[in-house]
Amino acid sequence: MKYRRSGRLVDMTQYLLAHPHQLIPLTFFSERYQSAKSSISEDLGIVNEILRSRRLGSVETSAGASGGVTFIPTVDMKAAEHLIDELCDKLEDPDRLLPGGYLYMMDIIGDPALTQELGRIFASYYRRDKVDAVMTMATKGIPLAYSVAAHLHVPVSIVRHEQRITEGSIVSINYVSGSKKTIQTMSLARRSLKPHSNVLIIDDFMKAGGTIRGMKDLVQEFQSTVAGVGVLTEAVHEEEKLVSDYTSLTKLSHVDVKNKKIQVERGNIFQQNT
Amino acid sequence: MKYRRSGRLVDMTQYLLAHPHQLIPLTFFSERYQSAKSSISEDLGIVNEILRSRRLGSVETSAGASGGVTFIPTVDMKAAEHLIDELCDKLEDPDRLLPGGYLYMMDIIGDPALTQELGRIFASYYRRDKVDAVMTMATKGIPLAYSVAAHLHVPVSIVRHEQRITEGSIVSINYVSGSKKTIQTMSLARRSLKPHSNVLIIDDFMKAGGTIRGMKDLVQEFQSTVAGVGVLTEAVHEEEKLVSDYTSLTKLSHVDVKNKKIQVERGNIFQQNT
Repeated sequence: MKYRRSGRLVDMTQYLLAHPHQLIPLTFFSERYQSAKSSISEDLGIVNEILRSRRLGSVETSAGASGGVTFIPTVDMKAAEHLIDELCDKLEDPDRLLPGGYLYMMDIIGDPALTQELGRIFASYYRRDKVDAVMTMATKGIPLAYSVAAHLHVPVSIVRHEQRITEGSIVSINYVSGSKKTIQTMSLARRSLKPHSNVLIIDDFMKAGGTIRGMKDLVQEFQSTVAGVGVLTEAVHEEEKLVSDYTSLTKLSHVDVKNKKIQVERGNIFQQNT
Repeated sequence: MKYRRSGRLVDMTQYLLAHPHQLIPLTFFSERYQSAKSSISEDLGIVNEILRSRRLGSVETSAGASGGVTFIPTVDMKAAEHLIDELCDKLEDPDRLLPGGYLYMMDIIGDPALTQELGRIFASYYRRDKVDAVMTMATKGIPLAYSVAAHLHVPVSIVRHEQRITEGSIVSINYVSGSKKTIQTMSLARRSLKPHSNVLIIDDFMKAGGTIRGMKDLVQEFQSTVAGVGVLTEAVHEEEKLVSDYTSLTKLSHVDVKNKKIQVERGNIFQQNT
């Protein structure tokens, strides 16, 4: 099928958006549209210009025999700050307070459009860090982790508290829960993370950082490295956190159970260079 | 910022793809691009033509005061069949066999690009069924459920075996596991599903159908209706299944543990009208 420029632009845009962080040879597009490479290059220039002006990402060109283009998703940090400020307002609703000072957050985590936007912030932040895999803890970290991984085009490894029979050989480690000071176990299927991976750890909540610390140790058990740590919400913890190098989208700075007051602010990712 | 047609087409495409199943007024686009509605309508015609020709979806126009356009994602069924045939081949790898006749599937479930494509098949199939929410069972149903929900633009309710303290009031039901014939409990946070919803149940695996049957009962506890049931893999079960009305992407038709032979074929969704 022969395409005019207008048709090529629509299809190219959808194709690039659906294949982030993947090198696409120019010949792929020139064959798909039966068009000269020079026309394709011009088209890609237009797509790049518009996506960049919207701060949605960039179409990067690599020269040489393996030449082609790669779409790298980013976020408009102003829009992200606005999204996070709205999220902070939502989280401050006193109806969220649960016994024990926990917050009800399943409506946030259960909103796929929102988790996609939130995951995009981490994917943009870690876009130059050669991430090979995303690791998360079941259950509530999974949606955000998948969003980050989809934008980075890497697989997800799901760590669990239980040891499931349906996953074959498993690597388990003990770790100390930072807030409760109890010894717990976490497991990951041997097959679900390739050795020598550079792993981005994503989770929904961090207080003392015991679970994150455990996942960092688990990464080592797979002869792998930690590319970074990102959490949806960090809570203020009286003592020193067990993890120091992490990024957060929101920060639960104060919970007053008695007076039903919750204070949530932007996380530290907005104080760092992106 | 004033846009030329080429720029409008790129931005409109990305915007529509990012907002499936959402009515977008024409005035939104005419203000965004400072262009006349007649130009916007022409642009939308081009986007619609290309997305339809690729069978990626359609841009549907609704007239009247609330007039606008809605992007409805679909799949190219030929491409979907090809994807599923490849998946069946992968699943037939004897190395997947685990003790008890289970199959290792975390690499499939852990691939975000693949789960997005698989979820799109269900989202396309149930696109006219006025789905209000997707329900799934932790842990392995979650990735597929989020993909379906993202394409349909509805929230996800995650049912669990445990009863977690961090979710407030919970609705629990007992159900009989179809294959093991044991009584088990599943729970869903009261707040995580609105009453009178039309719920699409999505899970990774179904054998006798006990878990799905349990989720159907749970939907009733929320005064809600079941829009449909979709599973990634159904296994052949010697006795009658506890659920009859479901769609599957793949069918595990034979497992011979002794000779390490697995047979997987296309699921029943490919035998139905879409």
